[in-house]
Amino acid sequence: MKNVLGREIPDYIEGYGEVKPFQGAFANYGTREKVGVKVSSVKPGEEKVLNSIDEALDKIELRDGITISFHHHLRNGDFVLNNVVYAIAKRGIKDITIAASSIFPVHEPLVEHMKNGVVTGIVANYISGPVARAISDGYLKNPAVMMTHGGRPRAIESGDLHIDIAFIGAPTADTYGNINGVYGNAACGSLGYAVADAEYADKVIAITDNLVAYPACPIEISQIYVDYVVKVDSIGDPKGIVSGTTRITKDPVGLKIAKMATKVIEASGLVKDGLSFQTGAGGTSLAVAAELKELMKNKEVVGSFAAGGITGYIVDMLKEGLFRNLFDVQCFDLDAVESYRDNPKHQGMSGSMYGNPHNKGAVVNNLDVMILGATEIDTDFNVNVTTGSDGVIMGGSGGHSDTAAGSKLAIVVTNLIKGRLPIIKDRVTTVTTPGESVDVVVTERGIAVNPNRKDLIEKLNNTNLPVMTIEELKGLAEKMTGKPEAIETSDEVVAIVEYRDGTVIDVVRKPIA
Amino acid sequence: MKNVLGREIPDYIEGYGEVKPFQGAFANYGTREKVGVKVSSVKPGEEKVLNSIDEALDKIELRDGITISFHHHLRNGDFVLNNVVYAIAKRGIKDITIAASSIFPVHEPLVEHMKNGVVTGIVANYISGPVARAISDGYLKNPAVMMTHGGRPRAIESGDLHIDIAFIGAPTADTYGNINGVYGNAACGSLGYAVADAEYADKVIAITDNLVAYPACPIEISQIYVDYVVKVDSIGDPKGIVSGTTRITKDPVGLKIAKMATKVIEASGLVKDGLSFQTGAGGTSLAVAAELKELMKNKEVVGSFAAGGITGYIVDMLKEGLFRNLFDVQCFDLDAVESYRDNPKHQGMSGSMYGNPHNKGAVVNNLDVMILGATEIDTDFNVNVTTGSDGVIMGGSGGHSDTAAGSKLAIVVTNLIKGRLPIIKDRVTTVTTPGESVDVVVTERGIAVNPNRKDLIEKLNNTNLPVMTIEELKGLAEKMTGKPEAIETSDEVVAIVEYRDGTVIDVVRKPIA
Repeated sequence: MKNVLGREIPDYIEGYGEVKPFQGAFANYGTREKVGVKVSSVKPGEEKVLNSIDEALDKIELRDGITISFHHHLRNGDFVLNNVVYAIAKRGIKDITIAASSIFPVHEPLVEHMKNGVVTGIVANYISGPVARAISDGYLKNPAVMMTHGGRPRAIESGDLHIDIAFIGAPTADTYGNINGVYGNAACGSLGYAVADAEYADKVIAITDNLVAYPACPIEISQIYVDYVVKVDSIGDPKGIVSGTTRITKDPVGLKIAKMATKVIEASGLVKDGLSFQTGAGGTSLAVAAELKELMKNKEVVGSFAAGGITGYIVDMLKEGLFRNLFDVQCFDLDAVESYRDNPKHQGMSGSMYGNPHNKGAVVNNLDVMILGATEIDTDFNVNVTTGSDGVIMGGSGGHSDTAAGSKLAIVVTNLIKGRLPIIKDRVTTVTTPGESVDVVVTERGIAVNPNRKDLIEKLNNTNLPVMTIEELKGLAEKMTGKPEAIETSDEVVAIVEYRDGTVIDVVRKPIA
Repeated sequence: MKNVLGREIPDYIEGYGEVKPFQGAFANYGTREKVGVKVSSVKPGEEKVLNSIDEALDKIELRDGITISFHHHLRNGDFVLNNVVYAIAKRGIKDITIAASSIFPVHEPLVEHMKNGVVTGIVANYISGPVARAISDGYLKNPAVMMTHGGRPRAIESGDLHIDIAFIGAPTADTYGNINGVYGNAACGSLGYAVADAEYADKVIAITDNLVAYPACPIEISQIYVDYVVKVDSIGDPKGIVSGTTRITKDPVGLKIAKMATKVIEASGLVKDGLSFQTGAGGTSLAVAAELKELMKNKEVVGSFAAGGITGYIVDMLKEGLFRNLFDVQCFDLDAVESYRDNPKHQGMSGSMYGNPHNKGAVVNNLDVMILGATEIDTDFNVNVTTGSDGVIMGGSGGHSDTAAGSKLAIVVTNLIKGRLPIIKDRVTTVTTPGESVDVVVTERGIAVNPNRKDLIEKLNNTNLPVMTIEELKGLAEKMTGKPEAIETSDEVVAIVEYRDGTVIDVVRKPIA
């Protein structure tokens, strides 16, 4: 079977099931059902605090084949996932599926659990490091399912992804299960990605190293969703919680790209009062924010909101009055955590509110401008941020395809060549985000506009920006690097790339090394 | 059939269905199911703003027999319910059930709709004024269903009360349906009672007189739950929104009762760091708060939280550091609205978080001391706040039975005699709150302790408080007033009193005038 993008996808995949093929970014709306939820009601006088993960595991029904979930707000500093899986593995439980919103290098111990059959499934929106490598190498029994930040809450709410037990790393929790991420040693700010887990899992266990007296305020996740609160010594290493990628690039090429991207935004006509904006936390993407900031100041524009994973750069724009509000699903640095805690204009949002296509309208639907990265782009404007040019998993959508679909102007910023390889190809190794929702690609050598956006091509033709076709841009790159060879893969599907609506946009096959 | 309190209740009631009899305040816990929800997903580019209630009614499927819901945060100033029902009635729709969290005198136009068959069902937690009278007089086709503030969200979440369309009066809404109650001409503060409606209704329509640019922050009810936003001239009269009952009594009898109640609280040993407290907004109840405040200051006690409908008196206690936090489901005055808006220690809560017995633990479960009112109390400590001594509906539980069940010490404060009638009877006209969850009755002439609370009787016997049996207290009253005659009622059931768990604790029969 080929889906609408021409990607070869089996009808049925062992360990996954029937495949619903991707049919277009907006093909799958209409009325949807959020699934019912089982709740163990709590009587007055019943207590929730437990003194160890083991005590919690004693309280719940563990069995082979369960799905357990985790959020990734502690990022590469997270201790929760490893400690929980270790404790479960010790009990001889097998065949676990890990539904983590993202997986980082710190989660390397999962590789051993994959090899010995404790962990046989992984569902995540982003996977980097040894676990990604091990999945690509075929060590996970079932194919990994790679979702998006909006697709994951959709899957949870619809029942497509049923969570037996959610383990929620809680920087602060009170004795009755109210949770926030703004206080404590492992303060990480917004807990947006944990919300659907808390609302829909059969059992919800908060794990905290900062147990406080009732009530913990502010409340990001309410006591009404939490079965138990487990006190541990530490849920994470603050140094790993703050990502290292949130710095504006100093590379002159990256800065040039940022300037050009900002000129594209200006030419689009969207830089006016009410502008809404999101950018990733990559160095070039943040440089676009810095350029846009100057432009907004010069034009005296007040934007409506900036959204996303929030960094100090965006917080500064809020403080300077360039945006009225921020929507924050994840804080990338301590400036963001502090602002989220103290500034009522800096509003939290759940993953569902951020990007779920099947609720009554996510925040991404209101985005004007989205700045995206890319590992590869093809001449249909499809973007890969899931696999490297060697075919090995090294990331995933995160909010990439959610924001691309929702925003009026989705701009990919990237060097034309990375590691001596051209970024633009005839065919990306893996489609993460469909070309129909990518409007512009900005490189240091030229700018290509999606031919569907005739309005934008016209506007850019009135500028002195180096607009060309994507084929021309590809040609420029290949002149320098030559045409790269296609990756050879086996037939074995090691990961399934689900589009935000739950259809399969692509699969990752095991590369032949 | 008699339920566990000995109340005669039919097995089956026409217009209501099978009766699940009340079996005790804590008989009905365990695992419960929250029902699935239908969601009309909203694509990028789709808009939600409509210019009139009629435009909204054009968009949705109206039919005879639907259930429509309203919150009561605009109280006796509410314009939303009347205007919506008027617009629906004009279209010839019949047999509507109104699921309003409470109904006030301002909703008098419902009486005409009841008489002509437009409105045939009413579900509410509190009903006062002409609608209450008309229900008692038999003008509503089906018996009214009287729930509690915690029982209503339980019923909605479980599917027992299915809402076809929720109309949410929104003091402020943005163009995409984010709602708050803290800004706008009709600012009423917390919108806690509207939360379950927004989450579970088939369709959710925000009605606002303060439509603002996206995004409206803070967000109390999210865009992800709202289908349409209707702009109207006015959703309510601010003068009616602030209740007139929120003043400390000046009556010396009331003040005496408050002093005695506070001595009971002191003797109970609960006045220590971490104390949690709630009081109704009646004059005597507020006087208890004033007394408790002095006691806490003298003892240098810092409480954990005060909860409930919040008044300026409670806000002052927060400001003075007597409580660490407030939990607010409803603001009773403008001081409360302002504090809820500006003070992060003043936290909102949904009706479910406040009192739902079937979630993972409501705020009422953590209450130490609850001060309650009463219309009648019987020698089993059952309390009536639903009907007057003439048998006519004049109120309802609100949070009465929720807080009584949850709190460690539930104290009823009341004059021994009101309107020449004794408050304590052999048998209350209607049971709102079961005696098992009422601990103490404090009157100006004496204090009766529930015989189940031997611990408390012992503690009070060590004070000079006038402790006596409830029979003795009844005797005192009857010496002054004589024994009142029982009310005569017909067999016709005009209202069903549901306990918070959905069982039937009593019915209201039509009084014979």
